[in-house]
Amino acid sequence: MALKTPEEFIQSIADLDLEIYLFGEKVDDYVDHPVIRPSLNCIAMTYELARQPEYEDLMLATSHLTGTKVNRFTHVHQSTEDLVKKVKMQRLLGQKTGSCFQRCVGMDAINALWSVTHDTDQAKGTDYHERFKKYVLFLQENDLVADGAMTDPKGDRGKSPSQQADPDMYLHVVEKRDDGIVVRGAKAHQTGSCNSHEIMVMPTIAMRPGDEDYAVSFSTPSNAKGISYIYGRQSCDTRKLEGNELDVGNSRFGGHEALMVFDDVFVPWDRVYMCGEIEFSGSLVERFGGYHRQSYGGCKVGVGDVLIGAASLAAEYNGAARASHVKDKIIEMTHLNETLFACGVACSAEGHQTAAGNYEIDMLLANVCKQNVTRFPYEIARLAEDLAGGLMVTMPSAQDLAGEKTGPLVEKYLVGVGDTPVIDRMRVLRLIENLTLGTAAVGYRTESMHGAGSPQAQRIMIARQSNLDHKKELARELARVGKPWEKAKVKVPTVVSAG
Amino acid sequence: MALKTPEEFIQSIADLDLEIYLFGEKVDDYVDHPVIRPSLNCIAMTYELARQPEYEDLMLATSHLTGTKVNRFTHVHQSTEDLVKKVKMQRLLGQKTGSCFQRCVGMDAINALWSVTHDTDQAKGTDYHERFKKYVLFLQENDLVADGAMTDPKGDRGKSPSQQADPDMYLHVVEKRDDGIVVRGAKAHQTGSCNSHEIMVMPTIAMRPGDEDYAVSFSTPSNAKGISYIYGRQSCDTRKLEGNELDVGNSRFGGHEALMVFDDVFVPWDRVYMCGEIEFSGSLVERFGGYHRQSYGGCKVGVGDVLIGAASLAAEYNGAARASHVKDKIIEMTHLNETLFACGVACSAEGHQTAAGNYEIDMLLANVCKQNVTRFPYEIARLAEDLAGGLMVTMPSAQDLAGEKTGPLVEKYLVGVGDTPVIDRMRVLRLIENLTLGTAAVGYRTESMHGAGSPQAQRIMIARQSNLDHKKELARELARVGKPWEKAKVKVPTVVSAG
Amino acid sequence: MALKTPEEFIQSIADLDLEIYLFGEKVDDYVDHPVIRPSLNCIAMTYELARQPEYEDLMLATSHLTGTKVNRFTHVHQSTEDLVKKVKMQRLLGQKTGSCFQRCVGMDAINALWSVTHDTDQAKGTDYHERFKKYVLFLQENDLVADGAMTDPKGDRGKSPSQQADPDMYLHVVEKRDDGIVVRGAKAHQTGSCNSHEIMVMPTIAMRPGDEDYAVSFSTPSNAKGISYIYGRQSCDTRKLEGNELDVGNSRFGGHEALMVFDDVFVPWDRVYMCGEIEFSGSLVERFGGYHRQSYGGCKVGVGDVLIGAASLAAEYNGAARASHVKDKIIEMTHLNETLFACGVACSAEGHQTAAGNYEIDMLLANVCKQNVTRFPYEIARLAEDLAGGLMVTMPSAQDLAGEKTGPLVEKYLVGVGDTPVIDRMRVLRLIENLTLGTAAVGYRTESMHGAGSPQAQRIMIARQSNLDHKKELARELARVGKPWEKAKVKVPTVVSAG
Amino acid sequence: MALKTPEEFIQSIADLDLEIYLFGEKVDDYVDHPVIRPSLNCIAMTYELARQPEYEDLMLATSHLTGTKVNRFTHVHQSTEDLVKKVKMQRLLGQKTGSCFQRCVGMDAINALWSVTHDTDQAKGTDYHERFKKYVLFLQENDLVADGAMTDPKGDRGKSPSQQADPDMYLHVVEKRDDGIVVRGAKAHQTGSCNSHEIMVMPTIAMRPGDEDYAVSFSTPSNAKGISYIYGRQSCDTRKLEGNELDVGNSRFGGHEALMVFDDVFVPWDRVYMCGEIEFSGSLVERFGGYHRQSYGGCKVGVGDVLIGAASLAAEYNGAARASHVKDKIIEMTHLNETLFACGVACSAEGHQTAAGNYEIDMLLANVCKQNVTRFPYEIARLAEDLAGGLMVTMPSAQDLAGEKTGPLVEKYLVGVGDTPVIDRMRVLRLIENLTLGTAAVGYRTESMHGAGSPQAQRIMIARQSNLDHKKELARELARVGKPWEKAKVKVPTVVSAG
Repeated sequence: MALKTPEEFIQSIADLDLEIYLFGEKVDDYVDHPVIRPSLNCIAMTYELARQPEYEDLMLATSHLTGTKVNRFTHVHQSTEDLVKKVKMQRLLGQKTGSCFQRCVGMDAINALWSVTHDTDQAKGTDYHERFKKYVLFLQENDLVADGAMTDPKGDRGKSPSQQADPDMYLHVVEKRDDGIVVRGAKAHQTGSCNSHEIMVMPTIAMRPGDEDYAVSFSTPSNAKGISYIYGRQSCDTRKLEGNELDVGNSRFGGHEALMVFDDVFVPWDRVYMCGEIEFSGSLVERFGGYHRQSYGGCKVGVGDVLIGAASLAAEYNGAARASHVKDKIIEMTHLNETLFACGVACSAEGHQTAAGNYEIDMLLANVCKQNVTRFPYEIARLAEDLAGGLMVTMPSAQDLAGEKTGPLVEKYLVGVGDTPVIDRMRVLRLIENLTLGTAAVGYRTESMHGAGSPQAQRIMIARQSNLDHKKELARELARVGKPWEKAKVKVPTVVSAG
Repeated sequence: MALKTPEEFIQSIADLDLEIYLFGEKVDDYVDHPVIRPSLNCIAMTYELARQPEYEDLMLATSHLTGTKVNRFTHVHQSTEDLVKKVKMQRLLGQKTGSCFQRCVGMDAINALWSVTHDTDQAKGTDYHERFKKYVLFLQENDLVADGAMTDPKGDRGKSPSQQADPDMYLHVVEKRDDGIVVRGAKAHQTGSCNSHEIMVMPTIAMRPGDEDYAVSFSTPSNAKGISYIYGRQSCDTRKLEGNELDVGNSRFGGHEALMVFDDVFVPWDRVYMCGEIEFSGSLVERFGGYHRQSYGGCKVGVGDVLIGAASLAAEYNGAARASHVKDKIIEMTHLNETLFACGVACSAEGHQTAAGNYEIDMLLANVCKQNVTRFPYEIARLAEDLAGGLMVTMPSAQDLAGEKTGPLVEKYLVGVGDTPVIDRMRVLRLIENLTLGTAAVGYRTESMHGAGSPQAQRIMIARQSNLDHKKELARELARVGKPWEKAKVKVPTVVSAG
Repeated sequence: MALKTPEEFIQSIADLDLEIYLFGEKVDDYVDHPVIRPSLNCIAMTYELARQPEYEDLMLATSHLTGTKVNRFTHVHQSTEDLVKKVKMQRLLGQKTGSCFQRCVGMDAINALWSVTHDTDQAKGTDYHERFKKYVLFLQENDLVADGAMTDPKGDRGKSPSQQADPDMYLHVVEKRDDGIVVRGAKAHQTGSCNSHEIMVMPTIAMRPGDEDYAVSFSTPSNAKGISYIYGRQSCDTRKLEGNELDVGNSRFGGHEALMVFDDVFVPWDRVYMCGEIEFSGSLVERFGGYHRQSYGGCKVGVGDVLIGAASLAAEYNGAARASHVKDKIIEMTHLNETLFACGVACSAEGHQTAAGNYEIDMLLANVCKQNVTRFPYEIARLAEDLAGGLMVTMPSAQDLAGEKTGPLVEKYLVGVGDTPVIDRMRVLRLIENLTLGTAAVGYRTESMHGAGSPQAQRIMIARQSNLDHKKELARELARVGKPWEKAKVKVPTVVSAG
Repeated sequence: MALKTPEEFIQSIADLDLEIYLFGEKVDDYVDHPVIRPSLNCIAMTYELARQPEYEDLMLATSHLTGTKVNRFTHVHQSTEDLVKKVKMQRLLGQKTGSCFQRCVGMDAINALWSVTHDTDQAKGTDYHERFKKYVLFLQENDLVADGAMTDPKGDRGKSPSQQADPDMYLHVVEKRDDGIVVRGAKAHQTGSCNSHEIMVMPTIAMRPGDEDYAVSFSTPSNAKGISYIYGRQSCDTRKLEGNELDVGNSRFGGHEALMVFDDVFVPWDRVYMCGEIEFSGSLVERFGGYHRQSYGGCKVGVGDVLIGAASLAAEYNGAARASHVKDKIIEMTHLNETLFACGVACSAEGHQTAAGNYEIDMLLANVCKQNVTRFPYEIARLAEDLAGGLMVTMPSAQDLAGEKTGPLVEKYLVGVGDTPVIDRMRVLRLIENLTLGTAAVGYRTESMHGAGSPQAQRIMIARQSNLDHKKELARELARVGKPWEKAKVKVPTVVSAG
């Protein structure tokens, strides 16, 4: 095994010759396309930091399959310490990219499939776990990016997969052959899919009898015949076409989601990990969801660190940094951000070993973590916009700064405190815009809301995991419910004089 | 006097031949420029609705100067009823445009200058009020759009205007001549300035001795020699260049802010309303701020109505509208939105007549109104993003929908409930994106935060207006502070048996 | 007609010889009982302020029945100005008593019954309105306190009145006689009932066919044969028995609720205002609820003023008043309190005339008002507890201050800033305790939550009043839903060099 | 060493013959006094659970001094696992007592003094650590309760200890003798002090030159000559005198605070751990505060569990448990409560070893934990009051339930769903009242606010620990601040047709 260099990673993605559509047209040179490249740079960072000694402890892990060091993104968690390091690695990468760096989905899918294939085999006598173990070995040995694909388009949400007018609204098996299966459908909102070597497909809901064809999980090369990608449109995406790092805010890094279409894709049996076992689809969804809800207690915190830093700089640049309300707002942002981190750490530290041997987060706390993630980044963003000031959205463009007539005016009137260069003040404001309204807001806001399951999904899990009966028993015990009541001992409150 | 038609308004703006820069280049055909036109359409709506009998009661008012009907945006408020109608007119326009419609700034400047010029004359023996009365008559008779320009670039916020390294950081008088004054400087974040016939300039802070040259207020045609505009860059602005109403979200309407530069502009004396009277600059800022903080209790509520409606549609289209949590979130959005409206109405209904005869809002409640506006639209937006789902930010582009290969895939996989056309589902999601991340987010979020003064400005005013001494007196009275204490009457609590 | 003096009011209540039980025993001298008297003092304040010229404008109104001045609490609102003055009167009384002053319930019942009796007569040919008019005249001419009694015990909330195991879980008609009706049941949580001359009974929910006997509304003297009261227990109630104004916090004023039992009470027909007209029970509940939800935008704001004042004093006394976080918390309390007031004013100013001629609040805004009241007083209380410091709940008792050994120690160690007497510091902290944990917390917290309907009741009304269809139409119009889409005009975003 | 039984513990406290004042009088039989006993029962529970095998893992720890099992409350933490178990033990005890169980203060003082004495010795050549080690051994071997006493009365907060008008406003050394020191002053808000065998005294702020006499830390038997206690008054405390478990809500358990007075108390040198080393007083405050802020992520969560359970029961008893808004509120309470737990766990799991060998929590996360504790219990309490309904505060008393006439009426009209006995419904409502307004609200609300430092104290620590410079550096790196800007590459956005 050899860890890839960032350059090797990018070349390997280029070599896949994926079928990616952007703005309605097929993109051939996608690794060099200005809209797409920042997203690749994010994943390249997961390779780059893995090569730096100072980050080795977080970025690498010792494979329990081979005993060699692997990138943690391909690791099967062997301890709660591994779970905590995962969260810290994610915070680090959020700090370094200010973006969604996309490689977590696969890591979380690996760990969910690890235990679900084991449980399925135990119950059904299948051999999915052995197949999956080989696949993980393959990922580790080649240091690959494997996407986890779960969310189907869903059509009418009031109907089950098999009840949909169009049977392809949920990805399903259309043919079982001796050598494998053929699948059709799509996966929506696929974070990082166009930067991945491999795709691990999972069902998106607990399936019921009649939906067996939809209870399917497998992996496939991302460039398998029949797979195409429609690149999602993001706020301010075309600023990256303007040759203009300034207005992009964060010019080198970004994330993406795509609609991934499976048009009768063939999958050989040794890459199939579920095929009809409807009773295990729910577990797979829950466990993947659980790991991914943990993830957000790391990655979004790292991005939050960047936003807090940028808001502080913005306040400094206009001379307001010492105002007590400014300092208090930065404290509040920090407090909220660290609360998210605490949740990420706690659900990790409270993890437990599964029957399959790997470690799983505490499910209740992981859902609590994500539920907070659906709220606090919005408030952190609101406070950042408060500190940034209105200039963030009324500021002239980079073209104005470069313009013959307008350039000097922008230089003159956007001056801040001391000798801060106007270009730097603009850069920091554009970074805040990027995170709160621009391309990165997709990751910092909407993904915080809907990634790893929408808020209501966590509330359902919290209710399920909360052991309310135990709490009621505690209350009954203290209130002495059901105990006899000694009416005769009741005295009437009156007061006698002290004198 | 004749009320203008929308078409006449647009032609009149075209005729001004303003010096507007966009993306570093001067725009000649600005009224037809795809980035700029939606902003003009908003103001045109203030003319259009004024001609519709069903809205006449809100849109028109009877001028106290002429007794004839004028557009309410040029009216001097004559009663608390006028103040309430102003707020309702603003809600209506927010509903019709889903944008900042920009004409309020001038209305609020008119009403602030009306009383401040009067007070200045009383104290200083000047004749500003008479001049200003003539100017208002001119605006009413020609049904003009007059922008109010207050915010200076400010440079180092720790320093006063005259202490700045560059004296132009605050707009100031550079020459006093027999026939008028010459001014230099800039006004930032100028909402609607490129759509205005006239500009009313006001100082941005309370001035102190030494800053007399900065205590200047005047009006000028927007195309006066020496005035130029640098059009502010907005999130997703260039989508309007794609010929593509779909991805714009709200293709017909929008707002804008510009950096307005005054390069030695001449103003004749009959258009000067303050010149050196530093002791009245604070009042002018407070009163304009007060009126404008009231305004937000109308306009943002109207935009909120659109966002609530759009979020409801999005939930309907994917079949989730009947879920109890969805219904509850819509109730919460409505509750927050109507709380803002209540504040807008209350500060109007509790208004009072000024010494100059016009009506002013209740200052405490107007500041409370705006303070809520710095919070609730963000929460309404968060809930809208919750209901919209992740598709809002991962959705393929209009170009994909139009693409030969991609079009059918988008049509197939973005299907929602029943027979909702995919294009309509996409349109509604793009409208939500527009309001929460796109061009309209500038108005609905950041302007809610910083327009009419940043949050801390309202907190200072709330503290100043809260009459804390009276509240302390109430507490002292009830707690009997300072009264003698009858120690001898104290009894020890014990209890005697009832039996 | 003559307005009563406070003393006449108290004597008149004493003369009623009500059957009141407190701590399981009948109380004979209830107007002088230390637990009960503060509650009477609150209502007495409604008589006292009505006699003070400075409050006349708020406290008195001109009866539309007689043209004479009556206490506003017995008035039928004749204008939106009346509605606004009602709210201001309530704020004033909250300020003067720091308590629930209880007389509002009847005022709100009068105005709800005024229009419902009219509507019933129009639909059913009954003569309830004429009867009720005579009753109001009687109340006004004798300046009486009339309680409004709505909430039934309800038993199993999953069952309708007639389905309950015990038919008395909702108050109902047990006999119709030639001269009147006989009723049985109870009304729970009856604010101020033991201080009232008269009781107006109303049903508590919209009734359905089969529940005719429960659709009953009438008035009765509070001392009618068969009526008894069980006085509700409040937090810290027995401190009032300790002869010790200090630990009570607010020694002169308080509120109360009682369980009112109707044990076969006879009501003559001329005091019956609904008897079987199930289709009007829902309107009566909604309108009474609406008026009472408005009320909370006044009374709770007045109590909030006291709490803000007390918290400010507490901070002053320990030398922390100038800390920026202390000032900011007082601003936040003020902001929240004034937001409630704004809602109270707005639903009043936006009121409308009913078919019966009196004025009704805006139903949507009144429900929004109350919904905020279920939240903000809790946050105001939390901030007050922050400013008060832990001493509020760890402080020695009045008995300790009076104690021979302990007194000097308390005097020594509870010293605050400057020469503030220790007794005054303790008084203010006990007042805050009273409002946040003690007897007044019943009114300021729990009543804010559940009075005039629990939070969910307002949410249902907000949903019903929000006109969501209109909002969806606004969104459709702006998003151009259903319009043809000009696919051909879509252009691909690329960028050409400026050069 | 032998672990004490609960009975032995209570007897040992009785044997101390402490000088406790309650309601101004000295209490001789304090362990049997109905107001005081519930507080002793709480600490007795820390002995009782330690004897139950199922809780042994949490309640006991292996002393690093002796290698034997000791009650964890006397343990010096040896690992992050110890820190996590501490939090879980606290949650358990909160669940079992529904109260503040008081013994944590000493545990946190032990661990803070452990490392501070070590650091002082290193810097100053003193031998405090060895003395303190012997003291801990003494506590462990005798299984004692040692209180930690920090908060001084403080007088005027704008002045330092030595500047106060009365030098005793901060506890200080009045005499240094060969055999020890004599101290005078007081400690306020002393949780559990009247139930403790020993008191560990610490300074309350960082001391500066001139305040050497105030930089003093020592331990003393709680019954040393010159120490007296004035028992703090709590909301509803005298209900415990009514012989009436019902209205108390939680009749067996409670907490207390006292004002502890030191009137020239002698302390031998071997019990002195700081005496004039002003530069270490700040560390001691911070470390004790840090441990104690961690504690609240356990104990308050346990009490929250009880409140959630009680609110669920209340909703069940009145037939509302299946309403979606009720279920959602219970989810929200759970979510908030578990967020606190996550913070408690995280600051523990992220702990580190000190130079003295014991383990310390992560300071930033511990402060974040406590800051959330100043907010969420208030919201949990608000939601509990929502679910409880108004009956919680309008309910007749236990005396009414026992009354001849009133008893049957209460039994009849307070009936809930099915066959829930009325007494049980009342018990659960009184438990909620106890936690939100009554004696336990002192622990669940005010102590959550002010215990272990008021909210602003945590904010200062969060600011200090947040490493804002690192965050700013992250932002600068991504925004490319200071990098050259390639103006020439800027292109103007235009769009060419796809056709």
